[in-house]
Amino acid sequence: MTTTARTDAVICDGFAELGVATTHEAQRRTGLLSSRLRPRQSGRAVAGPALTCEVPPGDNWMIHVALEQARPGDILVVSPTSPCDDGYFGDLLATSAMARGIRGLVIDAGVRDIAELRAMDFPVWSKTISAQGTVKETLADVQVPIVCADALITPGDVIVADDDGVCVVRQDAAAAVLDKARRRAEMEAGKRKLYADGRLSLDVNNIRALLQEKGLTYE
Amino acid sequence: MTTTARTDAVICDGFAELGVATTHEAQRRTGLLSSRLRPRQSGRAVAGPALTCEVPPGDNWMIHVALEQARPGDILVVSPTSPCDDGYFGDLLATSAMARGIRGLVIDAGVRDIAELRAMDFPVWSKTISAQGTVKETLADVQVPIVCADALITPGDVIVADDDGVCVVRQDAAAAVLDKARRRAEMEAGKRKLYADGRLSLDVNNIRALLQEKGLTYE
Amino acid sequence: MTTTARTDAVICDGFAELGVATTHEAQRRTGLLSSRLRPRQSGRAVAGPALTCEVPPGDNWMIHVALEQARPGDILVVSPTSPCDDGYFGDLLATSAMARGIRGLVIDAGVRDIAELRAMDFPVWSKTISAQGTVKETLADVQVPIVCADALITPGDVIVADDDGVCVVRQDAAAAVLDKARRRAEMEAGKRKLYADGRLSLDVNNIRALLQEKGLTYE
Amino acid sequence: MTTTARTDAVICDGFAELGVATTHEAQRRTGLLSSRLRPRQSGRAVAGPALTCEVPPGDNWMIHVALEQARPGDILVVSPTSPCDDGYFGDLLATSAMARGIRGLVIDAGVRDIAELRAMDFPVWSKTISAQGTVKETLADVQVPIVCADALITPGDVIVADDDGVCVVRQDAAAAVLDKARRRAEMEAGKRKLYADGRLSLDVNNIRALLQEKGLTYE
Amino acid sequence: MTTTARTDAVICDGFAELGVATTHEAQRRTGLLSSRLRPRQSGRAVAGPALTCEVPPGDNWMIHVALEQARPGDILVVSPTSPCDDGYFGDLLATSAMARGIRGLVIDAGVRDIAELRAMDFPVWSKTISAQGTVKETLADVQVPIVCADALITPGDVIVADDDGVCVVRQDAAAAVLDKARRRAEMEAGKRKLYADGRLSLDVNNIRALLQEKGLTYE
Amino acid sequence: MTTTARTDAVICDGFAELGVATTHEAQRRTGLLSSRLRPRQSGRAVAGPALTCEVPPGDNWMIHVALEQARPGDILVVSPTSPCDDGYFGDLLATSAMARGIRGLVIDAGVRDIAELRAMDFPVWSKTISAQGTVKETLADVQVPIVCADALITPGDVIVADDDGVCVVRQDAAAAVLDKARRRAEMEAGKRKLYADGRLSLDVNNIRALLQEKGLTYE
Repeated sequence: MTTTARTDAVICDGFAELGVATTHEAQRRTGLLSSRLRPRQSGRAVAGPALTCEVPPGDNWMIHVALEQARPGDILVVSPTSPCDDGYFGDLLATSAMARGIRGLVIDAGVRDIAELRAMDFPVWSKTISAQGTVKETLADVQVPIVCADALITPGDVIVADDDGVCVVRQDAAAAVLDKARRRAEMEAGKRKLYADGRLSLDVNNIRALLQEKGLTYE
Repeated sequence: MTTTARTDAVICDGFAELGVATTHEAQRRTGLLSSRLRPRQSGRAVAGPALTCEVPPGDNWMIHVALEQARPGDILVVSPTSPCDDGYFGDLLATSAMARGIRGLVIDAGVRDIAELRAMDFPVWSKTISAQGTVKETLADVQVPIVCADALITPGDVIVADDDGVCVVRQDAAAAVLDKARRRAEMEAGKRKLYADGRLSLDVNNIRALLQEKGLTYE
Repeated sequence: MTTTARTDAVICDGFAELGVATTHEAQRRTGLLSSRLRPRQSGRAVAGPALTCEVPPGDNWMIHVALEQARPGDILVVSPTSPCDDGYFGDLLATSAMARGIRGLVIDAGVRDIAELRAMDFPVWSKTISAQGTVKETLADVQVPIVCADALITPGDVIVADDDGVCVVRQDAAAAVLDKARRRAEMEAGKRKLYADGRLSLDVNNIRALLQEKGLTYE
Repeated sequence: MTTTARTDAVICDGFAELGVATTHEAQRRTGLLSSRLRPRQSGRAVAGPALTCEVPPGDNWMIHVALEQARPGDILVVSPTSPCDDGYFGDLLATSAMARGIRGLVIDAGVRDIAELRAMDFPVWSKTISAQGTVKETLADVQVPIVCADALITPGDVIVADDDGVCVVRQDAAAAVLDKARRRAEMEAGKRKLYADGRLSLDVNNIRALLQEKGLTYE
Repeated sequence: MTTTARTDAVICDGFAELGVATTHEAQRRTGLLSSRLRPRQSGRAVAGPALTCEVPPGDNWMIHVALEQARPGDILVVSPTSPCDDGYFGDLLATSAMARGIRGLVIDAGVRDIAELRAMDFPVWSKTISAQGTVKETLADVQVPIVCADALITPGDVIVADDDGVCVVRQDAAAAVLDKARRRAEMEAGKRKLYADGRLSLDVNNIRALLQEKGLTYE
Repeated sequence: MTTTARTDAVICDGFAELGVATTHEAQRRTGLLSSRLRPRQSGRAVAGPALTCEVPPGDNWMIHVALEQARPGDILVVSPTSPCDDGYFGDLLATSAMARGIRGLVIDAGVRDIAELRAMDFPVWSKTISAQGTVKETLADVQVPIVCADALITPGDVIVADDDGVCVVRQDAAAAVLDKARRRAEMEAGKRKLYADGRLSLDVNNIRALLQEKGLTYE
């Protein structure tokens, strides 16, 4: 529903800047969607509240319904009710989605018109690319909690997506996770300099003793 | 055979312009090859008569035989007699194919020398990329009807290939399908403008009543 | 170990120039790693001695240990002890690897921070891309013979990797294989010119008689 | 936790009798776990409250922890935090699970000692069979909501499993779903007799007119 | 259509006796359906004319239509218009199919109620088993040539299926192929005795000289 | 070669009795072949020296050559030089193999005549079942070290195979590994009794303190 609470845009933008790997680590390595979802462009990083949509196999009717529920900044998250590789989403739907302010698409199925989607700069993370068309015959649910690519996604949760994949952050944990992610990024920046100078992670992190305790031996 | 009838070049060019998704829809969502075939370059769209070639697993001999049957504008379509990911086709065969006027390759197996193929601008749609070499020991059939990536392809049928995948159009239906595809493209152009203006597909296509009849409810 | 004998850099550079397909053919079509390993950038070709590293599923501790064993020019080869798609390697490890002179990574698992790896121009061949983080809890072996992506790799063997995939050349055969690969490349250069002129491989290689003997008929 | 509310055993037994396909249909075709989970025996049908357990890749420590939380009649549901095919569960854990009253195992990973598990008549639904052993190093969560094989499972939900696969029924919907499933089974029993007599489903269900309206034609 | 010509039952029974591997060899190793189709029972071998049926993803309506076209002895062959693992066929449809005289089902998708199908002794070759239900919304074609699991199947062709998989024999070639298959079976019976006596195939088939000519050496 | 040293039959028989999971654990969780190899019968456990054989894709000639090198008790291990699912081995080869005293087949490819192989009680572990026939055209190596299903196998190594999969034990380590495996089996027998009495593994193995130290908390 359009009345579903969304995570604040400033928080979402913070996640887009930090990226999927850092976000995922900051929430104790949880929330990652299956790596079968791949970016269909290069170098884009986005984050925004999830607009969720279930679709029957080979039927994209509910995506049309979902677009009416969109609010600017949303990321459309589509999951089929049984595995399907059809091309549910193409340049017409992307035109409509962009006009509604949607920032990107995450779909555990196929997309098509991929050359046009890239030309439009509308970012997509999908299971595959397929020209296979779909019908409009059967209903399913929009803006309800769904499982997409092995992760539970509740409407309004923050979706973070970049070249590494897609991660979800629970709405009520978003601010705290962002804070942890930022501290992690700062900590990593410090290590990066030491590693670039040739320092070994074994020394930087003081793990030689721990390795020895576990039984590591050199021959 | 070189005497196999080919679809007119003007018709083929029309399909290349319209693309795979539109062609596939124009013939009632049929004729698509499996989405496991992926373009091995970006942004190319081609169409031309199929020059068909069966190959045994791990044996590319018949591709050499097929090249002799080529006519300018043809698209070489290769299918193994049992699933195989070997690299059947590389830069030497591509050099020969281009010299014979072949426009592109569709193969339900692997290709190699992919950096060279891209540099030569010879477009390929394949199941995978693999450096695995093949032998030349066993015969198979050239220019006969074959099943390639789940689709029946008869010599002379039109093969359409772009970033979305590969589609086949029966030779005797090509002119009519092209006509339908063009009308579909025009119809979509009209909708695209409306969607870009923020109009919803639910309204543009008058499907709210139908959704209600099926039982859609809003909470 | 740092004392493991490495193949001469001049020989390695020779392989990088010739590429994977030619190398693989020059050693009687052996030594190829599974084509499930894909380059995660475009247009890079590298070769160097293998620095081998086993890792438990979901645990990248031993990569940190392996980096201490690196010598400039090495290629890090990582194989999980059971199949795993996790993102074992990201931009921090890449920073350290580059500082140690490592030329590239071959891993039968996932990598992450892929946008950063590309920006750093650190080449990677991997099974997948995944943001999934790993732990540091369990030991495994470094610089021992391992099976990686279906190929046996002994420390110091030459790893050759380009857009076609990854190949391994036994250390004691490297000089001889390089010699054969060079002759093959020269032979192919000659054929390439003939094919570009429109000559058929059936004629260039005199195989019409052989085809006829096997039973090829034209209709 | 052992204090997690469980669905009544009488209701669970009702589901076991009706089976997965009927249960899944009775709740509007929802709740099915991915068909990659397969029964590792033939002819067993069980149902019981879910005892949920997350495990890191290659690490079965938390299954040992989960067993302490078991109550008689439970079905143990195990999901790895990233995809893993290792053999997490064998005859020792099965011995302990049976002693604790657990009715069966659903695991989106591998099991081993499969000959012994069959001999013990302990039913298992798993992604694969693998002898690959696991370590005991890393913690994860027990008796929390998890996603297992594409379905959300909350502790205490009813797990139904038979030769067709695995289905989950929300705890608070269980009684109502069972009621619908029973009515569906009765309705199907009536149809089965008519079909066995040679009556066509087109006639039994009066769908000839609907087909004609959709455009079905006979040639 | 019910008026589609069928291959003679005596010929079909001959194929069922000889089995898939022998039939496939007798027609020059052609006609095999993809090995992703697996028998869902053990020890059954059947053959009969194909009754073909296309189905949209997740929609089994056309199977109901196809049953009306059945003639005793037919084998129902179902192929989805895009890949789908749903459970299209269960015990109700099997009851109706058996009442219509159908001998078995070949489906490049899923089936369900598998315990009941086995109890009814109705043989099935399918891509998977899944309880996932389907809808009845969209039309497709019945009794037309289809591609099923990589093979072209025309109504009335002979389908042969056993524990090794599924093979199709063109209707107009059936008698001749059966004859060749019988001679092959006799030839193999002779060899089997020699092999059972410890004779080597290298000697029985006189291939030592040929191996030597190809370059075989013993160390 | 027939002169390849084999591991003693008494040791092999010891492994067959203990099984794959125990053997694999006894050698520090190494030596397991990929779980894509599955038993094609139920309840068989065998062990014996490896008779290794490489085969080109779609070509089973070298299996015929390998049979001459067999010694009673051997297990034939076949690996294709590039991935292939064809049916390389059927009842004729099995007849010959049994006559030569071969105890079983491990093949990273397909087999056929599976009903006959089961009737003959010749045990097989394969990647798949396929009726697809092969040719006899190209040489490869017999009785050399090969990589089969991700494991390095040297002629004479012990192959252990049962319902859990396949494991290899290096010839020179066989006696020591068998000893460790036996002790492990005894240790497990003791635990099994305790677990059957309802004792928890947390207590039997004294791991509560370790869990607490790692941070386990109960809610």
